[in-house]
Amino acid sequence: MHAELIAQRVPGTELAAVYDVVGDAAAVVAEKFGARSADSPAAVIEADDVDAVAICSSTDTHIDLLVEVAAARKPAFVEKPLSLDLTEVDRGIAAASEAQIPVQVGFNRRFDAAHRGVRDRVAAGDVGDVHLVRISSRDPGPPPISYIEVSGGIFCDMTIHDFDMARFVTGSEAVEVYATGAVRVDPAIGAAGDLDTAAVVVTHASGAITIIDNSRRAVYGYDQRLEAFGSAGMACSENPPAATARYWDFAGAHGTPLPHFFLERYTPSYLAEWEAFAATVAGAPSPVSLADGRAPLVMGLAAWKSVREGRPVAVSEIG
Amino acid sequence: MHAELIAQRVPGTELAAVYDVVGDAAAVVAEKFGARSADSPAAVIEADDVDAVAICSSTDTHIDLLVEVAAARKPAFVEKPLSLDLTEVDRGIAAASEAQIPVQVGFNRRFDAAHRGVRDRVAAGDVGDVHLVRISSRDPGPPPISYIEVSGGIFCDMTIHDFDMARFVTGSEAVEVYATGAVRVDPAIGAAGDLDTAAVVVTHASGAITIIDNSRRAVYGYDQRLEAFGSAGMACSENPPAATARYWDFAGAHGTPLPHFFLERYTPSYLAEWEAFAATVAGAPSPVSLADGRAPLVMGLAAWKSVREGRPVAVSEIG
Amino acid sequence: MHAELIAQRVPGTELAAVYDVVGDAAAVVAEKFGARSADSPAAVIEADDVDAVAICSSTDTHIDLLVEVAAARKPAFVEKPLSLDLTEVDRGIAAASEAQIPVQVGFNRRFDAAHRGVRDRVAAGDVGDVHLVRISSRDPGPPPISYIEVSGGIFCDMTIHDFDMARFVTGSEAVEVYATGAVRVDPAIGAAGDLDTAAVVVTHASGAITIIDNSRRAVYGYDQRLEAFGSAGMACSENPPAATARYWDFAGAHGTPLPHFFLERYTPSYLAEWEAFAATVAGAPSPVSLADGRAPLVMGLAAWKSVREGRPVAVSEIG
Amino acid sequence: MHAELIAQRVPGTELAAVYDVVGDAAAVVAEKFGARSADSPAAVIEADDVDAVAICSSTDTHIDLLVEVAAARKPAFVEKPLSLDLTEVDRGIAAASEAQIPVQVGFNRRFDAAHRGVRDRVAAGDVGDVHLVRISSRDPGPPPISYIEVSGGIFCDMTIHDFDMARFVTGSEAVEVYATGAVRVDPAIGAAGDLDTAAVVVTHASGAITIIDNSRRAVYGYDQRLEAFGSAGMACSENPPAATARYWDFAGAHGTPLPHFFLERYTPSYLAEWEAFAATVAGAPSPVSLADGRAPLVMGLAAWKSVREGRPVAVSEIG
Repeated sequence: MHAELIAQRVPGTELAAVYDVVGDAAAVVAEKFGARSADSPAAVIEADDVDAVAICSSTDTHIDLLVEVAAARKPAFVEKPLSLDLTEVDRGIAAASEAQIPVQVGFNRRFDAAHRGVRDRVAAGDVGDVHLVRISSRDPGPPPISYIEVSGGIFCDMTIHDFDMARFVTGSEAVEVYATGAVRVDPAIGAAGDLDTAAVVVTHASGAITIIDNSRRAVYGYDQRLEAFGSAGMACSENPPAATARYWDFAGAHGTPLPHFFLERYTPSYLAEWEAFAATVAGAPSPVSLADGRAPLVMGLAAWKSVREGRPVAVSEIG
Repeated sequence: MHAELIAQRVPGTELAAVYDVVGDAAAVVAEKFGARSADSPAAVIEADDVDAVAICSSTDTHIDLLVEVAAARKPAFVEKPLSLDLTEVDRGIAAASEAQIPVQVGFNRRFDAAHRGVRDRVAAGDVGDVHLVRISSRDPGPPPISYIEVSGGIFCDMTIHDFDMARFVTGSEAVEVYATGAVRVDPAIGAAGDLDTAAVVVTHASGAITIIDNSRRAVYGYDQRLEAFGSAGMACSENPPAATARYWDFAGAHGTPLPHFFLERYTPSYLAEWEAFAATVAGAPSPVSLADGRAPLVMGLAAWKSVREGRPVAVSEIG
Repeated sequence: MHAELIAQRVPGTELAAVYDVVGDAAAVVAEKFGARSADSPAAVIEADDVDAVAICSSTDTHIDLLVEVAAARKPAFVEKPLSLDLTEVDRGIAAASEAQIPVQVGFNRRFDAAHRGVRDRVAAGDVGDVHLVRISSRDPGPPPISYIEVSGGIFCDMTIHDFDMARFVTGSEAVEVYATGAVRVDPAIGAAGDLDTAAVVVTHASGAITIIDNSRRAVYGYDQRLEAFGSAGMACSENPPAATARYWDFAGAHGTPLPHFFLERYTPSYLAEWEAFAATVAGAPSPVSLADGRAPLVMGLAAWKSVREGRPVAVSEIG
Repeated sequence: MHAELIAQRVPGTELAAVYDVVGDAAAVVAEKFGARSADSPAAVIEADDVDAVAICSSTDTHIDLLVEVAAARKPAFVEKPLSLDLTEVDRGIAAASEAQIPVQVGFNRRFDAAHRGVRDRVAAGDVGDVHLVRISSRDPGPPPISYIEVSGGIFCDMTIHDFDMARFVTGSEAVEVYATGAVRVDPAIGAAGDLDTAAVVVTHASGAITIIDNSRRAVYGYDQRLEAFGSAGMACSENPPAATARYWDFAGAHGTPLPHFFLERYTPSYLAEWEAFAATVAGAPSPVSLADGRAPLVMGLAAWKSVREGRPVAVSEIG
């Protein structure tokens, strides 16, 4: 999807070269979108016709690749999470800072029109001082256990988006995280040491309180709602229906299902994300900085510590 | 219902006396609400402790009773339609005018908060010049055939409310009516010479066009929607759900049914109607004058003529 | 309002006698609704024509009065909270149990059609196993500080309704409560030792997790939403608009405000509550037992302990 | 847009050659999407690498081009309206029939998920017998007067989509059309002999009645709603918001604007339309046949005759 958006739908960008650990995958994508297939990351990063690099590989390779891109002094896009290891994250930040390259982290929900609309209302003062933020974020179904095992767990893989939204909407850093959760969807998730159902309370420096609930399986579809409540009003983003057809019978109105997963719901946000990156490459400030990539990871680690220790955890305890 | 509202819920009013052609019915109601049962209309109309009279009897008795109330020089409330005979209506208007009594006609929908909200938006200029009005008015089920037979037919019994709404919302008189219809709900309605499904187009003096659709049976409940579209915006009243509970499953959201009939939907409007009548008795101008009662009847008669002759009919052809 | 509902709108009930610590108040109400004014609680409780007693006085008098009613062996209705002191509550429960009188506690939201619709979906199995419950409960404005000072604070006065809803919807007892909060609405509330903004996480015996957010001031009106999410679907109650009129302009659709306070929103639930009490007096099981009155108070006390100690508190620590 | 969809987003299609009366336009599009620019329609139609032809030129050229494509025995896509002249339409139909080529007419709204959802409910029997269809179709702003002058007027240019929807949803041919209208948006539209505001009542062979209202300018955006009401229920398609963000203040909820025009609203339907044409080329039956293209034109001509003569017009009077 990323390749298609870059090659065909983002104005002014072209897909030059593709590398994938599965060589055939790169070749297929390259062929389809008129790019060449590279046989190593370096063959992409160092190529003269590559102006910027998108790092969409597995999480544990992000920082090594970012350091390589920094060495080549090219702008970088990096998928979330940056890493599951804060020391690694800080190594990447140091490299990017020294090389003075612009970096954008892949928190695509910032580019969703509805969520952004909430942030814009807050930024415009329409909500007043933010007192409460309420986020429900529920997937239609869990990923494979093999993915779960290397994902960093629900708080670093799934809630991390909500932590990003909490900072984005309030404009305020987290100071404390309380988290709890359960295994309700699939015992295999519990056997892998993870949770599939969670509730999190975040206290922000501004005094705002964010409450988040997560589930790995909402049978009715991809449920993504966000609400900012404050002294002057409330702004919220509601789930878009897959289609606006309704049916009425004796039992009332019946709507259509939600879009089933992130591809349907968030494709426009991915497109906007790449357009923003094109602007970043052209010199605009990054809309999602490495600091914006680091903070939600700290919150995710604090959430795990909170669950393990059964108490609220200060973000300052993590780093 | 009217007795209960007057006796118990309208501030400052009391139910003094009740007359009904079915004597027992009056006695039961009178007993329940602390009033006396009268043995003739005159025993109500002429009683010293009766300050105002509500005429809620069968349509063919309205004008005779109104003339009696006028003779007693007391304020009157009269249910719609005033009569099915324009000559009779004009006789009632003359009597009321000569006696200088205030009269309020029972178009309760003018007191519904949602419909009134539409009118208020138009009156405030938020809609700009009104170009189109769209009304859907569908009952949950047809009345008994015995009622149908004396009702004046769908246009004088049911659409008459919509004709009133069209005048109320636009603030403009009708100049032409085109109507068509069918028998789709119950052949017995057709056998009684009536229609159960109808579509009407009204042209107003202001140039606004109102389109109305009616059905005697909406299986999903009492469907009452109104919309005013103009140069500056659009105002509409939507159906209120019976309750705001929703259920989501794989097929999407499921709401609750609509309120089943006019008692559930319009009780607050009836209460407001009686409060307005109390104010009219106390000297305020009538919110629904005899002229407001006459005009929709003319439109109903024009609609019937349009159906019979298969052409649009000028209101001036009727009287 | 209670007197009016009992006297005029609940089928089969009559208002016999009224006592109020402010004698004039009782006289005014008694006069208006055809009852007599009593000069002591005992003059109500012990009167032969009084079949059942409604205790709607200040919180600190509830249990003494309940014990008196139990001594008279009459059914009792008691407003929430039963008391702020669990020892007192248990004294009342013992007295009622010994006298074998039916008692109904005043958690009116159980009778709200939308909230009940959520419970019914859960009870019918449509939601499956309940994993998460989400409640937002926000008042349009804070009560007077004098009220705040004797209210038991936000968790025992306001959140107590949400604790009741959490038990009602899940059908499962709370085992742990984590609460946090802030003073964001009015510093005087903080000076009185209370909070005006709160977030609570409740873990139930069934494994369900309830998250609650509260505010003493929502500028857009009385915001009362409830949602139960589970393995088979999600049921929710949404806020009813004050009216269903909408206005569309270049900026989109604009609705009407929410009903401003509990009187507008919950009047039908109060009526249903009294109808249920009439059934309880006639022998039906109480829909809100003394145990249902006690449990949310325990949760409120646990929430306060959680805030004071900065940790989740087991309900078993309270009693 | 059509070129982009065909070249990049419809699976299995390629853009081979482009012709435009403005030669530069064809060259620009061809260059952008990897096709060649042709210097005559014949150079497209007769080319060996062109498997099918899309005729998206001005209305008066449609039939001549269709006849050419028929001579080349290739599948054709033709934009609506086929022509403003029924004799011409019939000449095209004869040519296509003789050559036995599949033809798809460009009524894209049949591919809109919401409108199609309504049709599917009717086709599945969920609506029962259709009694009433209600269509509101309002553009955000009028086209240039130069376009209006050659458009065939509101009924053949704009309402023609609604006529198509009426047939599509009911599955029943029109037997009578009554139309009225006004010039309310722009006097220049009246000076060009056209209307900008219209109301139409269509009677179908099945007995269903369709009511349509149109405006050339809805200040709140592109308003496209469709509703089918019948003996078993009602299905409707509502306007999708541009985004699902909402804002609540003391005045209630405020939504986001509607998508501004057909490009935003209907892009997915255009994509589905081209996918369907690819299937038609591959042998599937055409989802919008030449007969489906002819019937709405007849209805448009009947509507004009109705306005001119001030009476309902039988479709059989037109041809």
